[in-house]
Amino acid sequence: MFIDGGVEGASIEQIAKRAGVGKLTVYRRWDSKEAVLAAAIESARDGIPEAPADFADVPVATLVRELLPGLAEAIAEPRLRAMIARIFGASVSHPELMATYWDNYVVPRRRNTRVLLERAQAEGAIAADADLDVLIDMMVGAVLFRLVQPEPLDVAGAAAYLESVYRQAGLLD
Amino acid sequence: MFIDGGVEGASIEQIAKRAGVGKLTVYRRWDSKEAVLAAAIESARDGIPEAPADFADVPVATLVRELLPGLAEAIAEPRLRAMIARIFGASVSHPELMATYWDNYVVPRRRNTRVLLERAQAEGAIAADADLDVLIDMMVGAVLFRLVQPEPLDVAGAAAYLESVYRQAGLLD
Repeated sequence: MFIDGGVEGASIEQIAKRAGVGKLTVYRRWDSKEAVLAAAIESARDGIPEAPADFADVPVATLVRELLPGLAEAIAEPRLRAMIARIFGASVSHPELMATYWDNYVVPRRRNTRVLLERAQAEGAIAADADLDVLIDMMVGAVLFRLVQPEPLDVAGAAAYLESVYRQAGLLD
Repeated sequence: MFIDGGVEGASIEQIAKRAGVGKLTVYRRWDSKEAVLAAAIESARDGIPEAPADFADVPVATLVRELLPGLAEAIAEPRLRAMIARIFGASVSHPELMATYWDNYVVPRRRNTRVLLERAQAEGAIAADADLDVLIDMMVGAVLFRLVQPEPLDVAGAAAYLESVYRQAGLLD
């Protein structure tokens, strides 16, 4: 419902109706519409591979190569594009949604990515003075930006694109 | 009108009414709603400095340092944030708008930026095998992504952020 109609297209009332429950049942589990939508967004991105919290002795490049095919498949998916467009679109009109999603779901993932980048930095693949949060924005931002550009990527194009981004960031040789 | 209400909030009829002219007058100059909105978006970003088409002998880093303060002021502007959120939001629901804006306004600017990056590449500041279109996405995408994140940047924060992005890309020492 959020993908099709944005925040306006997904009221608690409509969500409850679609789920065949009462509004109170929804409110028992989530304390706001933003919390329901943030959880829905997170569950929609289920199955997209992400950097593990602990990756022991695996070299960074090996790990990135392992994550890449699943990521490419995910970002070539039109529904993901549509969802990203909706999230971006809502960021100013409904800042609470972005804030809730950011704090609950994005921040923990960024923490794991940062650990990965710190190791690449320790290995000398990323400049010692690089701002890793900005680098994460550059990697994620490139992909998000590419997804809203005309001419969507197919899976092979997405894989080539990601490889280029990771190489530029210093995560692949 | 587009910033406040998105594509739905800016019909040709409403635009004409607000401008105090008839719909036909609008259609005489622009052949679609997307063309009017693309022109409006472009005029709203007026004053944001951009890479010149021809920059002769100025070193790349000097040029970037010259552009930076104006860019920082622009991206700290809440109205620009709101407009970007609307453009992203419309990218899937109204792909014609993104396509029109992209072809008419973004492509020429990217061409100039590419010339700048090619020179930095020739100077050895950017890796010889770097994909410059992906690098442009990383630089622009980082900023766009940062703008929709919680905790907006003020002008000083925006300047520091841009500096970090340009340094990471190889455009500043």
